[in-house]
Amino acid sequence: MPLLVMKFGGTSVGDLARIANAAQKVKREVERGYDVIVIVSAMSGKTNELVGWVEETSHLYDAREYDAVVASGENVTAGLMALRLQELDVPARSWQGWQVPINTTSAHSAARFVSIPRENLDAKFTEGFKVAVVAGFQGVSPEGRITTLGRGGSDTTAVAFAAAFGAERCDIYTDVDGVYTTDPRISPKARKLDRIAYEEMLELASLGAKVLQTRSVELAMRYKVRLRVLSSFEDTDENSGTLVCGEEEIMESKVVSGVAYSRDEAKLTLMSVEDRPGIAAAIFGPLASAGVNVDMIVQNISEKDIEGRSMAVTDMTFSCPVNQVARAQKALTDASANGTITYDDLIVDTDVAKVSVVGIGMRSHAGVAAQMFSALSAENINIKVIGTSEIKISVLIDRKYMELAVQALHDAFGLDKAA
Amino acid sequence: MPLLVMKFGGTSVGDLARIANAAQKVKREVERGYDVIVIVSAMSGKTNELVGWVEETSHLYDAREYDAVVASGENVTAGLMALRLQELDVPARSWQGWQVPINTTSAHSAARFVSIPRENLDAKFTEGFKVAVVAGFQGVSPEGRITTLGRGGSDTTAVAFAAAFGAERCDIYTDVDGVYTTDPRISPKARKLDRIAYEEMLELASLGAKVLQTRSVELAMRYKVRLRVLSSFEDTDENSGTLVCGEEEIMESKVVSGVAYSRDEAKLTLMSVEDRPGIAAAIFGPLASAGVNVDMIVQNISEKDIEGRSMAVTDMTFSCPVNQVARAQKALTDASANGTITYDDLIVDTDVAKVSVVGIGMRSHAGVAAQMFSALSAENINIKVIGTSEIKISVLIDRKYMELAVQALHDAFGLDKAA
Repeated sequence: MPLLVMKFGGTSVGDLARIANAAQKVKREVERGYDVIVIVSAMSGKTNELVGWVEETSHLYDAREYDAVVASGENVTAGLMALRLQELDVPARSWQGWQVPINTTSAHSAARFVSIPRENLDAKFTEGFKVAVVAGFQGVSPEGRITTLGRGGSDTTAVAFAAAFGAERCDIYTDVDGVYTTDPRISPKARKLDRIAYEEMLELASLGAKVLQTRSVELAMRYKVRLRVLSSFEDTDENSGTLVCGEEEIMESKVVSGVAYSRDEAKLTLMSVEDRPGIAAAIFGPLASAGVNVDMIVQNISEKDIEGRSMAVTDMTFSCPVNQVARAQKALTDASANGTITYDDLIVDTDVAKVSVVGIGMRSHAGVAAQMFSALSAENINIKVIGTSEIKISVLIDRKYMELAVQALHDAFGLDKAA
Repeated sequence: MPLLVMKFGGTSVGDLARIANAAQKVKREVERGYDVIVIVSAMSGKTNELVGWVEETSHLYDAREYDAVVASGENVTAGLMALRLQELDVPARSWQGWQVPINTTSAHSAARFVSIPRENLDAKFTEGFKVAVVAGFQGVSPEGRITTLGRGGSDTTAVAFAAAFGAERCDIYTDVDGVYTTDPRISPKARKLDRIAYEEMLELASLGAKVLQTRSVELAMRYKVRLRVLSSFEDTDENSGTLVCGEEEIMESKVVSGVAYSRDEAKLTLMSVEDRPGIAAAIFGPLASAGVNVDMIVQNISEKDIEGRSMAVTDMTFSCPVNQVARAQKALTDASANGTITYDDLIVDTDVAKVSVVGIGMRSHAGVAAQMFSALSAENINIKVIGTSEIKISVLIDRKYMELAVQALHDAFGLDKAA
């Protein structure tokens, strides 16, 4: 019997009516001939309520107890979903993490999968059950305690089950109807993609198009799980949503698939840093220790005269989220004070945004960067920093031009037209 | 290390402040040198919310899924209580039913204990944990599914743990400060009892003084668990509350320990029932099938002339809750229609109440009934039906005299004065 994994997030099971709606979608797949593993999140708001109680009860809380409390939200949804399916005459039962079992590491609140043995679920499918409703986001440690995977872990649970059970596809039902070429709130010309490669999805997700958890896409890529994002609030069929898959399934790919952005960035430049081996480590080590998520890094070689002698110095520029600037400044000032690094000045620009174009087609197409820069130039947008990877080109620009840049690039690469 | 079981009901853990208050009481016992097993209910209102969701989702719900959903309420409290204890520097951890494990039958929503192996908890106590916080009301079936014991099961869980672990005492923290000689709302002279025998508590509980679940008292009696009822909202010490224990621990017992009542009773009399072997079964069989909880039964032998011959006939009187009268009438009418029983008339009195005096001292004291009847007679209260057991005498009277009767009996047996 072909098997499908269907995952419903918190808003998709936010109340009893929505659970009933999701159950209808599951029933439809059963009628199409699938055995189905349904992964459910907690009803929206429930996890936050539980987390709030834990944090109010204990400041430095025991993560094992946190997990035991917080995982209960998914257990409730799993039971209710199984009941609803039974009500629709679909043979279903709920499974909590320890019942499957979903074996994880003991890293509470950030556990990783160790194994998902198939025996228990397979036995029930053989008995005639058509649906296994599994509580997402949780597992059980070698010590027999309840673990959670961290926020958004339900997507990852779904992909892990799809891999373990050789599912034909893993459908992630959410509150958007797919992955778009860019944010429709910024560009009304944004178009839903029918397909997107894992690598592209990873770049888009980490850049702010938060449709899927990065970790779930990584896992899907590793195990070649075909992942589909679609809306739980619309009528959907086999062709709905966006399929995240391997490049080989994407026939006619454009050079650029999407334009991503990140609004609240800051640019920091250390002027006239002594240029010697190990200087980068001396700068970014303290920043990492301070919990600063450094994104783009640019270094220019320069020279200057110090006391009549020409010294090798460099200007070092990096970007980070704007709310981490104070932490970054303190880390650098401290490093300067204790003599780890020397620099003339620290220039901070908190008014920048990052705009990126992403596409696996770039690998085989030259000139994408030039095309990007000329599109921005045509709008008189000044580029402050450039960074590139194999399938992505990012620029930092003044924040006030961000929407304009996204729209211009969306047009320039023809993303409003189907491939 | 001496061990104590402490149980906190829903109102005692109704919010985070109350959980913190309960945790303080646990800490105090640890400081006195006890290892403690804490049994918790769901935060008040939570179980009803979950039950509501189940019932709305599925009319004839699968009891296995019902249990999986509903048990989650206790899991949340257990985790929060463990966290709060840790915050007070008390080494504690939470235990869900399957982790202990609390082995039960597969009778979902009405499961019974099979075994509570001590190994897992004992190992943790040996490691240095001082408190095991156990989710009450739940267990795990031989099939590995979550079971519940039915409403009020947390009291029973507490007693079962006290029996399994040989606890010195099982303290039930609730919203009253003990067991009273009668309902203080009816008699302001009602006095808290320091001690009460299991048998007396059973009679008082089933008669309406709903402080403890009957089932938990039965279990405590069977395993000789010393059970204490006390308030979670007052400062308490070793002498607080009421101890429910064996008679041998009660030195100076009064003849009567308490006066109980049941307000909404009805009295039904079948006139001139044919008096033959099997007639009682013919009457009460259909009533039981119809779900009528028959309480007191009185039969008088009489005779009457039918067509010139003297026939053996009897009047049969019984009582039941007033809201079951319609059901009882229908069952009797049906039995008459199909010829199972014959009677002249069915007289229904829905304006009666039951008042009972309870006390193990009755066993060795004659004249308690006479003393009771004369106290009622002094108030001109007419007795309609009398029923007796070894440690209880009950009467049905007009409902309007109920309060007066309770007060008169409370005075007559000197219950306002300490023994």
